Amino acid sequence: MTKPEIAKLGYVSLVTQDLEKSLGFFREVIGLEETEAINGVHYLRAWGDFEHHTLSLEQGERAYVKHIGWRTKAKEDVSGFKALLGDEGIAVETIAPWSTPGIGEAIRFEAPSGHTFEIYYDVKKPKAPEHRRSVLKNQTYKAWAKGISPRRIDHVNLHTSEDWQVTYKFFQEILGFKLREYLKVDDGDQILAGWMSVTSLVHDVALVSRKKDEIPTNARLHHLSYWVDDSQDVLRAADICKEYNLPICGPGKHSISQALYLYVADPGSGCTVEVFTGGYLIFDPDWEPVAWNESERALGNTYWGDSISAKEIVKYTIEA
Amino acid sequence: MTKPEIAKLGYVSLVTQDLEKSLGFFREVIGLEETEAINGVHYLRAWGDFEHHTLSLEQGERAYVKHIGWRTKAKEDVSGFKALLGDEGIAVETIAPWSTPGIGEAIRFEAPSGHTFEIYYDVKKPKAPEHRRSVLKNQTYKAWAKGISPRRIDHVNLHTSEDWQVTYKFFQEILGFKLREYLKVDDGDQILAGWMSVTSLVHDVALVSRKKDEIPTNARLHHLSYWVDDSQDVLRAADICKEYNLPICGPGKHSISQALYLYVADPGSGCTVEVFTGGYLIFDPDWEPVAWNESERALGNTYWGDSISAKEIVKYTIEA
Amino acid sequence: MTKPEIAKLGYVSLVTQDLEKSLGFFREVIGLEETEAINGVHYLRAWGDFEHHTLSLEQGERAYVKHIGWRTKAKEDVSGFKALLGDEGIAVETIAPWSTPGIGEAIRFEAPSGHTFEIYYDVKKPKAPEHRRSVLKNQTYKAWAKGISPRRIDHVNLHTSEDWQVTYKFFQEILGFKLREYLKVDDGDQILAGWMSVTSLVHDVALVSRKKDEIPTNARLHHLSYWVDDSQDVLRAADICKEYNLPICGPGKHSISQALYLYVADPGSGCTVEVFTGGYLIFDPDWEPVAWNESERALGNTYWGDSISAKEIVKYTIEA
Amino acid sequence: MTKPEIAKLGYVSLVTQDLEKSLGFFREVIGLEETEAINGVHYLRAWGDFEHHTLSLEQGERAYVKHIGWRTKAKEDVSGFKALLGDEGIAVETIAPWSTPGIGEAIRFEAPSGHTFEIYYDVKKPKAPEHRRSVLKNQTYKAWAKGISPRRIDHVNLHTSEDWQVTYKFFQEILGFKLREYLKVDDGDQILAGWMSVTSLVHDVALVSRKKDEIPTNARLHHLSYWVDDSQDVLRAADICKEYNLPICGPGKHSISQALYLYVADPGSGCTVEVFTGGYLIFDPDWEPVAWNESERALGNTYWGDSISAKEIVKYTIEA
Repeated sequence: MTKPEIAKLGYVSLVTQDLEKSLGFFREVIGLEETEAINGVHYLRAWGDFEHHTLSLEQGERAYVKHIGWRTKAKEDVSGFKALLGDEGIAVETIAPWSTPGIGEAIRFEAPSGHTFEIYYDVKKPKAPEHRRSVLKNQTYKAWAKGISPRRIDHVNLHTSEDWQVTYKFFQEILGFKLREYLKVDDGDQILAGWMSVTSLVHDVALVSRKKDEIPTNARLHHLSYWVDDSQDVLRAADICKEYNLPICGPGKHSISQALYLYVADPGSGCTVEVFTGGYLIFDPDWEPVAWNESERALGNTYWGDSISAKEIVKYTIEA
Repeated sequence: MTKPEIAKLGYVSLVTQDLEKSLGFFREVIGLEETEAINGVHYLRAWGDFEHHTLSLEQGERAYVKHIGWRTKAKEDVSGFKALLGDEGIAVETIAPWSTPGIGEAIRFEAPSGHTFEIYYDVKKPKAPEHRRSVLKNQTYKAWAKGISPRRIDHVNLHTSEDWQVTYKFFQEILGFKLREYLKVDDGDQILAGWMSVTSLVHDVALVSRKKDEIPTNARLHHLSYWVDDSQDVLRAADICKEYNLPICGPGKHSISQALYLYVADPGSGCTVEVFTGGYLIFDPDWEPVAWNESERALGNTYWGDSISAKEIVKYTIEA
Repeated sequence: MTKPEIAKLGYVSLVTQDLEKSLGFFREVIGLEETEAINGVHYLRAWGDFEHHTLSLEQGERAYVKHIGWRTKAKEDVSGFKALLGDEGIAVETIAPWSTPGIGEAIRFEAPSGHTFEIYYDVKKPKAPEHRRSVLKNQTYKAWAKGISPRRIDHVNLHTSEDWQVTYKFFQEILGFKLREYLKVDDGDQILAGWMSVTSLVHDVALVSRKKDEIPTNARLHHLSYWVDDSQDVLRAADICKEYNLPICGPGKHSISQALYLYVADPGSGCTVEVFTGGYLIFDPDWEPVAWNESERALGNTYWGDSISAKEIVKYTIEA
Repeated sequence: MTKPEIAKLGYVSLVTQDLEKSLGFFREVIGLEETEAINGVHYLRAWGDFEHHTLSLEQGERAYVKHIGWRTKAKEDVSGFKALLGDEGIAVETIAPWSTPGIGEAIRFEAPSGHTFEIYYDVKKPKAPEHRRSVLKNQTYKAWAKGISPRRIDHVNLHTSEDWQVTYKFFQEILGFKLREYLKVDDGDQILAGWMSVTSLVHDVALVSRKKDEIPTNARLHHLSYWVDDSQDVLRAADICKEYNLPICGPGKHSISQALYLYVADPGSGCTVEVFTGGYLIFDPDWEPVAWNESERALGNTYWGDSISAKEIVKYTIEA
C-alpha cells in the first residue's frame, strides 16, 4: 500500500460563545465571505479560497476548536489514513459524506498532540454568487470587499503539552509533514516548536510544545492564519483593527519563515488570527530543517517590529 | 518502476554575445549575486535562491539558451528519466557529474518543443561569502544590495513552432507537468499556450505555440522570470529600468496567474527577464485547468496596466 | 491692499445625469463618505478631508461641473478677490453665506478659461458621526471602509480652448498660482499645459490648452483627483475598478510631477477621477518651472505604465 | 517691515567622532548622495533633494550638531531675521556668503532652546553628475542606487531642558512656526512636545521639553528625518538595517502626524535618523492644533507597531 498523503490544510471548525461577535469579526474585520449558513453553522472562506469553506463558526457554551480539516492528495488516502491510524492504535471516527457541507467522506481522530483532525478528499468548490463573483475566471470572489480581505487560508499554529517526541514523530511519520524550521533547547535535541508542511509553504502547521502548567488544557489552537498578498496589506490590517478597537500584536517580521505578521483576536471566541505575507517557499526535495536554539527564540519569533514575546493576545488563545 | 518526477526549475544556461553588458545587467540592474566564475562562465543567483546558481552567463558568437535545468525529486529520478526518455526514442546525453559547477550527475536532451533540457538531482548549496551572507540563517544573501533585487527564480516561458499536441503531451505525460491554465482556439481543442507546474506555482513553465513563420527558429525562450515579494517592488523595478534607459513592458497584471509583471530585456543577450509577484498558489490535487479562449488572449495576458500585446520587447526574445 | 491669496482647492460641485449611479460610484467604488444630503445635493468627502465636503453631487439634465471652490488664506481675501476681479472687469456673483452647506461668505465668477470658480474662507469642519469617526483625533473618519478609500482631495485638471496667454496669466497673476511644470510648443513660448499650485503640491490645478475644434465646449474638467498614501493603493484601486467593470487608464507613473495615477470614470456623470500618489513637494520659494517640449508630451504624461495618450476615458471628460 | 519668514528646513551640520563610519552609514545604509567634499566636510543629500546638501558631516573630537539651517522665503528675510533677533537681544553671527559650500549670505544664532540655527536664502542647486543624474528632468539623482534611498529631508526633532514657555513662544512668534499637534500635561497648559511647521508638513521641527536632569546637556538633536515615498520602503529599511546589525526602533505608526517610522542610529556619531512616510498635509489656514494629554503620550508616539517608548536608541541621541 502506498503511504497516504495530505495535500493541504482544509479548514478550521470553530465554536464561539458569541456567534454574532465572531461573525462580525470574521466577516467585517477579517473580511471573509460566507458561502452559506446551515443549521446555525456559518461556512466562511477568503476571496481566493476555492473550496467550500476554510472556517466554520457556530454557537457554543464555550469557545473551542472542534477539529481541523486536512485534504488528502487522493481519494484512497482517506481509507489509507484510516488503516494507518488504526495500526497506530488511534480511534478513528467515520463521518458521513456531506454531513459537513462541502466535505465528502471523512474520518476524524485525536492526534497525540490532543487536537482533533479531520481527513477527507472529496470537496465541493462552489462558485460565488453572481454579484460577488470575480470577473476573473481563476478567482472565486471579487477582492477588497470588506476589511482586511485576505486571499486564502495559510496555516494553523497548535500548542500542546503532550510529549514532544511522540507528537513530532506523529506529525512527521504518520501524517507526512516535513520539518522545515524548528526551535530546540540549547542543550540536547528536544524540540520546542516545529514548522512543518506538506506543501511548498514553510508551514501548513506549527506545533509548539508547552509544559503542562503553562497551558490550561493539553491542546490549544494558538492561531489560524490567512494570507494577504502584500506587506502593505499587513499595515492596512493594523489600521483596520485599531479602528475596531481590537488588541493587536504586530506588525512585525518573523525570522523563522521570514514572513510578516499581524495578530488580532476574534472578540467573540478569543481565537487569534494571523494576517500573514512574505516569506519563502520550499521547492527543494532535500530541505535541511533550519534549527534555532532556545536562546534565539525571541529573534526567531520577531526579526523586527512589534515583538510577539510580551503580548497577551498571542498566548495559547483557544482550546482545541 | 515509479514514475520519475521533477521537483523544480533549476537554472537557465545563457550564452550572450556581449558578456560584459549581460553581467552589468544581471548584477547591477536585476541585482543577482555571483556565486563564482569558472572558465569564463559566471554563475548567478538571487539573494533567496539556495542552490549554486539559477542563471549561468557566458560569452558566445550569438545569444542563445544552451539549456534549462530541472531538478528532480529524488536521485534515482535522473536514471528514471533517462530510461523514460530512451523509451520515447529521445537521444539522451549524459553529463559528467560536477562538470557544471554546483550540478552533479545530469542528463541532457532536446524536448519535442526544440528546447534543450538538463535533468539532475545532486546540487551544491554554497553559503554566501561572510560579508554578503544574511544575518538570517534561512536566507542566503543580504537582500536589497543592488538593483531590483529579486528573491528567487520563478519560471521560464518557452515558445515553440512544433506540433502542439506532441509538445503539450510530452510536458505533461513524460515530464509530469500539470496544466494549470491554458489558452485555446475559440473553436476546437488546440492549445495555444499552457501554464504548467510541478510545484504549487501556477507555472514553472509556460509553453506558447507559434506558427513556424512567426518565430525565426523553432524554439525560443520568451522570458526568464524572477520573483519579488511585493507589488511595490515591481513598480520600483520600473523606476530602476527607466534610469538605465532600458525598454520595459509593464507594470501590469496578468489575468492568467493573477500575477504582476514587468518585462525588461538584457541589453547584452536580448533575453527578456520578467520581474514577477502576486498571483495564487495551487495546493488542490484535483485542480481543473482554467481555459481561456483565443478571443480572451489580450485579457488573459493583461488584466490591467501596460499591455504586453503591442510591445516589441516581449516578442520571442531569444533562441533556445 | 495686500494681494489676496488662495490657500487650497476646496471642492468640486458636480451635476450628474444619473445621481444614483454617481452616488454608487463615489461612495462604493471611490469610497467617499457622505457628510450629509440637503435638498437633493449630496456632500461627500474622503476619510482624511477635514472640511464639510470636497465633492457635491446633484441630479441634472446633463452632467457638468457647476463650479470649483477655492478656499482663501484669510477671511478678508474674499473681498480682496472681489475687488481684484472687479478691477479685471470680471463679473462677480455674491453667494449668501451658508447657502451652500459648509461654506460661508463666497463669490463666484467665470475665469477666462471658461470655468466657474467659487472663492470663500469660512467653512464648517464637521466631525464624523460617532460610529464612523476615527479613533485618531487628527483623522476625520475611519479609513478603509469601502472601495478605493482615498485620504483627501488632491487637484483638478482643467481643459480650455481659450487663449493661452490670457488664461495662464489670469491663473498666475490674479489667482496667484505658481507655475511648477509646463508643456510648451517645441518652437516658441506657447504653453500647452501648466501644472500650478498655491500649496507645496506640484499642482492644485493643471490647465491644458486645447484647440477649439478639439473640445466640444470651451471649458472642460478633465479630471478630479483624490490622493491615496501608497503606490500599492493605486494597484488595489485598479483591481477594484476592474471588478466593477469600469474602464480605467493606468496604473502608470507621470514624468511630470513623478506621481502614480489611475484614471476611472464615474459611470453616472462621465466625470473622470484620478487616484493619485507619490510625486514630490515644492518647499523652495524660488522654484524654477520645469519645461517639457511638445515632443516630450507622451513622456511627460507617462514615464512608465499604461499610457494615457491613447485611452478614450481620459479625453476632456466633462463640461465645466 | 514685513515679518521675515522661513520657507523650509535646509540642512543639518553634523560633527562625528568617527567620520568613516558615519560616511559609510549615510552613504551605504541610508543611501544619501555626496554632492562634494571640501576641506574634510562631506556634503550629502537625498536623490530628490534639490539644494546643495541637506546634511554635512565632518570629523570632530566628539559628536554634536553644529547648527541646523533654515531657508527663508525671500532674500530680504535674512536681514529681517537679523534685525528681529537683535530686537530680542539674541546675539547674531554673520556668516560669509558661500563660506559654507552651497549657502550664500547667512546668519547664525543660538535659539532659547539651546540649539544653533543658521538662516539664509541664497543657495546653490547643483545638478547631479551625468552618470548619476536622473533621466527625469524634475529629479536630481537616479533613485534606488544604494540602501534605504529616501527621497528628501523631512524634519528635525529637538530636545531642550530650557523653559517651555520661552522656547515655544520663540519658535512660534519669532521664527513663525505654526503649532500643528502638541502634547501637554494632563492638568494645565504646559506643553511637553510640539510639532510645528512653516510648510504643509505636520512638522518641520518637533520640540520636546525635558527636565534638566533627564538630558545631559540642555539641547539635543533627537533625530533627523528623511522621507521615503511608500510604507513598504520603511519595511525594506528595517530589513536593510538588520543586515547591517544596526539597532532599530520600529517600524511603527505614530498617532501624532499619522506617519510611519523607523529609527536607526548612525554608528559613527550616534545621531538617530528617522525613515518616515505617510501622514497628512495641512493646507488649511486656520488649523486648530491637535492636543494630546500626557496620559496619551505612548499612544501619541505609537499608534501601532514597535513602541518607541522603551527603546534605547531613541533617547536624546546627540548634543546640539
